[in-house]
Amino acid sequence: MPEAPHQTVAILIIGNEVLSGRTREANAWFAAQTLFDVGCKLNEVAIVPDVESDIVNTLNRLRKSHDAVITSGGIGPTHDDITMQSVANAFRVALLEHAQTIQLMTHFYGTEALTEGRRRMARLPQGAQPIICESSICPGALIENVYVFAGVPHIFASQLQSVLHAFGGQAFVRQEIEITCAESSFAAALNDIQLQHTDVEIGSYPAHCGKKPLGKICLSGRDEAKITAVRTQIEQMLKDIQPS
Amino acid sequence: MPEAPHQTVAILIIGNEVLSGRTREANAWFAAQTLFDVGCKLNEVAIVPDVESDIVNTLNRLRKSHDAVITSGGIGPTHDDITMQSVANAFRVALLEHAQTIQLMTHFYGTEALTEGRRRMARLPQGAQPIICESSICPGALIENVYVFAGVPHIFASQLQSVLHAFGGQAFVRQEIEITCAESSFAAALNDIQLQHTDVEIGSYPAHCGKKPLGKICLSGRDEAKITAVRTQIEQMLKDIQPS
Repeated sequence: MPEAPHQTVAILIIGNEVLSGRTREANAWFAAQTLFDVGCKLNEVAIVPDVESDIVNTLNRLRKSHDAVITSGGIGPTHDDITMQSVANAFRVALLEHAQTIQLMTHFYGTEALTEGRRRMARLPQGAQPIICESSICPGALIENVYVFAGVPHIFASQLQSVLHAFGGQAFVRQEIEITCAESSFAAALNDIQLQHTDVEIGSYPAHCGKKPLGKICLSGRDEAKITAVRTQIEQMLKDIQPS
Repeated sequence: MPEAPHQTVAILIIGNEVLSGRTREANAWFAAQTLFDVGCKLNEVAIVPDVESDIVNTLNRLRKSHDAVITSGGIGPTHDDITMQSVANAFRVALLEHAQTIQLMTHFYGTEALTEGRRRMARLPQGAQPIICESSICPGALIENVYVFAGVPHIFASQLQSVLHAFGGQAFVRQEIEITCAESSFAAALNDIQLQHTDVEIGSYPAHCGKKPLGKICLSGRDEAKITAVRTQIEQMLKDIQPS
C-alpha cells in the first residue's frame, strides 16, 4: 500500500469483448463514480485488446504518468487471459506461482480440483502482493503502483473496495443546474464565471427535447460552499438572459 | 473520404463528465457495435479530460497507429468545448470559420440569432471538410484520417452513419456457446482449439449464478462457415468433459 493515498489514477480495460461491441464497459464506469466520491481524480481510461504488446506498452505509459493504474480483465484461466503475464513483462519480472495463494486454493478446492487452469490463476508477477476480496478465491495483484483486477464486474467492485483506502482524500462534490435555453445564449457569460473560479470545474451538457433546447450545467470540486456560491451566480446569470 | 475503407480504428472520447462518473460512456459502445457489423476493427478506445495537451498528445499518438480515429465530444459553443481547437493544434493548422457552414447557419438561425457562440461552432481546422448529418446544423469535421464528432449520442450516431461507407468491408460475425462448468475445466482444451484456428477469435467470459459457474464462449471472425465448424468442435469438447 502507498505511503500517501493516490491522487490521480488511470484505468486500463483489457478485453476484445468490449472493443468488438459484445460487452458494454462497466468497470471504468463503476470506478469513475467510486473514485469521484473519495476525491481521487480519474485522468484517463484506455481500452485495449487481449494483445500482449498493447497491454505492455499502454501499461508502461500510464504507470509513469499517474499516481496509480487500475487494470480490469484478463486474469482468468483461459488462453485469452494474458494480463498477469503482460504485467510481469511490463515490469520485466518473472510470473511465479504464489505459494500462499496455492495454499488457500488447495484449502478451498481440495488438492484434486486444483487443476492446471486454477494454478494459472495463482501466478503473480514477482514482487506483487495478492489482492484478496470477498468475491473470489483467485487474487488480484498489486505491483508498485499498478492494481490488477478481474473483469467480472462484481469481483472488480469487490477488489476495488478492498483497497479503496489507498485512493483519494477529500471527496469531490457535484451540483447541477437545469437549463432550458440554447448553450450559445450563455456561453460567453459562463466562460467569464469559469475564469473567475478556477477551483470549480464547470461543464455544460446539452440535450434536446424535439427542437426545444435542454441540458445541464454541472459544477464540481472539493469545496461545497464555493460550489453553491458559483451556482447562485450562474443561476442569476441565466435569469438575466432568459427572464421567466 | 479515403481511397480504400478504413480497416482499423481508434476512438478518442473527450469529456470530464465521463471521467468523473457523471455520464456513462455511450458513444464508443455504440461505435464498437456499428464497426463490428461493418467489419472494421476497433483497436483502442481512449477517454481523456477537456485538457488541450491531453487531447493533442493522445490524438497524435492514435492517428499514427490506426487507419482512422473518431473523436467524440467537445464541439459545442461553451468554454469546455475545446476539441476543434485541439485538433487544429494537433495538425499544426489554424482554426478558421468555415464560410459554407456560416451560410448554412445564417439560413437556419437568421442573421440576428447567429451569436458568437454559434459562430464558434462553424470553426474547423484549416483543410478539414465539414461532416453534415441529419441531426445537427453544426458540423463535425474530417481532417486527414481524423473524424471529429459530437458527444451528444444521437448526433454522434447520425454523424457516424453519414460516413460509415468509409469504414470496414466484410462484416464480422459472432456466435456464442453457453457454458455451465468452470472455465478451468476446459481451459487447456479450448487453448488447443484456438491454436488450430487462428482466424477465429475465441473468448471465454465467465459469470456466476451463486456458486454455480455460468458464462459464454464467444467466437468471432469473418467466415461464418468456419465459425460454425469451430463451434461444433468446442461443443463436442464440452460434452466430453461434462457429460449430461
